[in-house]
Amino acid sequence: MRRFFVSDVLEGEFDLPRDESRHLAKVLRARVGDVVELVDGRGGRFQATLIVVSPSQCSAEVVRSGSDPAITPQLTLAIAPTKKTDRLEWFLEKACEIGVTRVQPIWTRRSERRVEKPERWNRVLIEAMKQCQDSWLPELEPALDFKEFLERYSAFKGLHAIAHCPVEEGLSSSIRTPFWDALNPGEDAVVCIGPEGDFAASEIESATAKGWLPVTFGDRRLRTETAALYAVQAFQLKQQSRNTRRL
Amino acid sequence: MRRFFVSDVLEGEFDLPRDESRHLAKVLRARVGDVVELVDGRGGRFQATLIVVSPSQCSAEVVRSGSDPAITPQLTLAIAPTKKTDRLEWFLEKACEIGVTRVQPIWTRRSERRVEKPERWNRVLIEAMKQCQDSWLPELEPALDFKEFLERYSAFKGLHAIAHCPVEEGLSSSIRTPFWDALNPGEDAVVCIGPEGDFAASEIESATAKGWLPVTFGDRRLRTETAALYAVQAFQLKQQSRNTRRL
Repeated sequence: MRRFFVSDVLEGEFDLPRDESRHLAKVLRARVGDVVELVDGRGGRFQATLIVVSPSQCSAEVVRSGSDPAITPQLTLAIAPTKKTDRLEWFLEKACEIGVTRVQPIWTRRSERRVEKPERWNRVLIEAMKQCQDSWLPELEPALDFKEFLERYSAFKGLHAIAHCPVEEGLSSSIRTPFWDALNPGEDAVVCIGPEGDFAASEIESATAKGWLPVTFGDRRLRTETAALYAVQAFQLKQQSRNTRRL
Repeated sequence: MRRFFVSDVLEGEFDLPRDESRHLAKVLRARVGDVVELVDGRGGRFQATLIVVSPSQCSAEVVRSGSDPAITPQLTLAIAPTKKTDRLEWFLEKACEIGVTRVQPIWTRRSERRVEKPERWNRVLIEAMKQCQDSWLPELEPALDFKEFLERYSAFKGLHAIAHCPVEEGLSSSIRTPFWDALNPGEDAVVCIGPEGDFAASEIESATAKGWLPVTFGDRRLRTETAALYAVQAFQLKQQSRNTRRL
């Protein structure tokens, strides 16, 4: 069954968004009476019968509805958008497939990109959500300056981690905990990943002063988007490691 | 210091490859006397002083050499090339960054792509190796039909896993072990990932008949290249989980 994203599914009859309508009518050659699956990105799953099919407007009637519980624990991944936007978009797609709750773009001292593309980035997330058959859409937050980011997210519960490369010795943050060891099964986490040129020493100091834990992903120098996906996947695998600990 | 890949580093004086020469002379504006780092993809690391700099030919003299031990345990990742080659290339880059020993392209019943691009794929691996500061280049094997693949790799030591989506009930391989549980720290592994349309039931049966373990990466439907990277990262994190088990 084809799956579509509709941010607001109404009870009873409702109109599908214009782009999904065109796709249904032109590409999929849907017909009146066909049943489609709709997800609302907030756990809602609906089966609906098409009652009007036209390239400009399709309408459907909900025949069944249900909802999936949100995935816990929650992971917020903060990332400095990459110079080439396709690397960030690649990360968004993969992070959604593997499982991330929230993506928070951040502007850092050494950020080379300063242009936000929220609509485009959100579309990537929607496509990935449909692909991996999830009904929860990761939240894409408006970008924040790193300072504001620290202000807002320091209040979140769970682990607060800042991933960075080795810095000059003597700096208090030169000791980094392996990320895998910092994770606790069942605990929420906020992880921030620096730009291509890494966080500035002063940014790392600001974070650690607020209690953020400096973490490392190992000796290999990972690209920004690889490091970010590494964090998402380690977080999800840590949850599994809990389930198997009793074996 | 700039890092270059030279498949054969000779003792004493030697010529750099043409493309690296052009890059050094034109883009990096290197000069005679500059010191560069060279890696040979087989663990060798060399420092060399440039003695001739010209866009058509640079020459260098080795002033220091050393070698890194190979990373163990070994992971062989077999993947059916994706319809769009950029998805496979993306996987190659990321798998090299995270750490993979060998990549084995496979042709399966439902493979949509049948064209191999070994030179191009190898260049992606070389760039990623330089990026992550490794001196070991993952081995890129010539593609094999799935049947030949099973013949050859069943003899490898360690875990043999075939990752696939749920299949019809009743098939012996309908029970799949979570991949994380199947991994053992310190043990080599060969993992095969199917094409976009998944392995055919007969391919799964052939593999299980030879003792391959059907594994799952969870309930989310991952793209081929996402599943492949998931396997690489789970393998590497499993090694870390051993190191922290005593904590």
